[in-house]
Amino acid sequence: MRGRGDRLAGALAEAELDRYLVTDLTNVRYLTGFTGTNGACICGPDLRLFLTDFRYTERAAAEVEGWETLTIGSDWLQGIAERLRGRVGFEDDQVSVRLLGKLKEKLGEGTEMVAAGGRVAGLRRVKDAEELATIAEASKLADAAWAWALERGLAGRRERDVARATEARIRELGGDPSFPVIVAAGPSAALPHAEPGEREIGRGELVVFDMGAKLDGYCSDGTRTFATGEPGERARGVYEVVRQAQAAALGAIRAGVRGEDVDSAARKPIGDAGYGERFGHALGHGVGLEVHEGPRLSQRSEDVLAPGEVVTVEPGIYLPGDLGVRIEDLVVVGEGALRNLSSLPKELQLVE
Amino acid sequence: MRGRGDRLAGALAEAELDRYLVTDLTNVRYLTGFTGTNGACICGPDLRLFLTDFRYTERAAAEVEGWETLTIGSDWLQGIAERLRGRVGFEDDQVSVRLLGKLKEKLGEGTEMVAAGGRVAGLRRVKDAEELATIAEASKLADAAWAWALERGLAGRRERDVARATEARIRELGGDPSFPVIVAAGPSAALPHAEPGEREIGRGELVVFDMGAKLDGYCSDGTRTFATGEPGERARGVYEVVRQAQAAALGAIRAGVRGEDVDSAARKPIGDAGYGERFGHALGHGVGLEVHEGPRLSQRSEDVLAPGEVVTVEPGIYLPGDLGVRIEDLVVVGEGALRNLSSLPKELQLVE
Repeated sequence: MRGRGDRLAGALAEAELDRYLVTDLTNVRYLTGFTGTNGACICGPDLRLFLTDFRYTERAAAEVEGWETLTIGSDWLQGIAERLRGRVGFEDDQVSVRLLGKLKEKLGEGTEMVAAGGRVAGLRRVKDAEELATIAEASKLADAAWAWALERGLAGRRERDVARATEARIRELGGDPSFPVIVAAGPSAALPHAEPGEREIGRGELVVFDMGAKLDGYCSDGTRTFATGEPGERARGVYEVVRQAQAAALGAIRAGVRGEDVDSAARKPIGDAGYGERFGHALGHGVGLEVHEGPRLSQRSEDVLAPGEVVTVEPGIYLPGDLGVRIEDLVVVGEGALRNLSSLPKELQLVE
Repeated sequence: MRGRGDRLAGALAEAELDRYLVTDLTNVRYLTGFTGTNGACICGPDLRLFLTDFRYTERAAAEVEGWETLTIGSDWLQGIAERLRGRVGFEDDQVSVRLLGKLKEKLGEGTEMVAAGGRVAGLRRVKDAEELATIAEASKLADAAWAWALERGLAGRRERDVARATEARIRELGGDPSFPVIVAAGPSAALPHAEPGEREIGRGELVVFDMGAKLDGYCSDGTRTFATGEPGERARGVYEVVRQAQAAALGAIRAGVRGEDVDSAARKPIGDAGYGERFGHALGHGVGLEVHEGPRLSQRSEDVLAPGEVVTVEPGIYLPGDLGVRIEDLVVVGEGALRNLSSLPKELQLVE
């Protein structure tokens, strides 16, 4: 974890920053290991300072590695301000207008706050071996929860009941859901962000089942679309288009490729099949301490993939009032072949 | 729910604001009923406009009451900016520096953003009858989870196992935990924000058990300290001081009283008993859509209590390396007597 502070410090010189203030708690956790609800980091060429309050002194002692820990007594912002010098980069995408105003009132002469968000998010994109192992483990846990859920069957049960039971299973297996499990059947599956409802899943329906597990703070994310018995030619046709689009995108992923081009690789077969308007979201996103982080795989992305990045690949087709299909894997970008962390089969599975 | 938008609009004139922009999602939910992950409100004298994106058009139609709903197509900030006029109050305690900067670039001539956070949080302090009923129901659910947990016993089990099992029970009963359940026994109970650990709960220990349930978005919050068999004279003495402090604070709560004075009412008996330094946190806080909201009961609070506010009353004494006691009720402020939503007894309970 020490290397993370060093990488951040290394990036400050080129941005002409003397200090960098990290207040986003996920970024603080990434840099220091701290998991409490109040903490901040100040990073400089020779400074790795972690600040918290009295409630977390003991936890910081147990968790924080490679950063000097200081407990701020009474005035939190004053405690931060006193330790800032020169040009101070701050996370302008996280810090509220009010907080910045209050902090500025307390700064010493010659200290200046410079909007410089996203530095730690940039570091977080590439995962180290330990992070990759944890994410792989989380993905495995989710796959085990899927196996369990499918054994119990889908048809005849309410979407919400399947979702809640699967969340409970994830917890039994030692994880937490990365986000509320999505189970959307029949016409509901046409809503890309459907909430599991009270509707009973019918026979011969397509069921979009989207979930992930969180383990030691790291998330997984995946989706499969199942059929509760034969769904018919049309549904099979749509499914096959999505499956081929997903395979095309997986084939396009390697270090050096642009996120936009990977998105295009999936978008083309869907467009060719006449469903271009029915794939209304981005192809994928990075996953780590947050279930949505960088890089982005979309038409608007300017990201270029690097080895060790973990991204979802999740094309979908949604036909309003009718049906929906999404297939999502979680993969690790490599110099050559990617490593796919999702173990479930991609051919359409007919389940109970 | 319509009345909420009206109350907000009513407060704009005196602040000389033409519009008020609400971006905090909890505040958006409070005003409109919307539970999705992207939405904003623009409120003016004759304007109740709710904005969301295509993913949530259907959900908004089902959930939003009393506000006109508009789906923003592509550029979210542009869609907001076009609908702002004159002096526009915004939630400076929520809006990031970056977001404000981007929004300002898109404003029309003569439109000005004015820092004015906390307006909706102010409205949220006083709960209406429906909100009170939901919070009471959530509290009842938590009490039922407690009864269940105590039946299974505490001694000989790991803190973490008791906490996880109780969270699962809350979910089985149809709620969600308001926050991760705290179970802290023996010396761990001396940490006010202890995470449940791997340690096995011994016999004759005090166990701080802090939890709440969330139902339809509304939270409950409560704490009891139990003894796993006779804890000894000293522990009983500390418990009794906290119990009396809590009773004193409950006796001080009514509309028109200052939060600071209620805090003092609890702090005095603890100080008199020589434990003043060992009660290192505020007495209580408001509870509603968030488990921590206004008003505050603390030495630094400037809040004055009003009928219909829901607050915790939770004094504690923490003796490092030794033991901890906290007793917390959730109560509704009234003109006269308060309404206590916590049903568990306050005398020290000896449990298995």
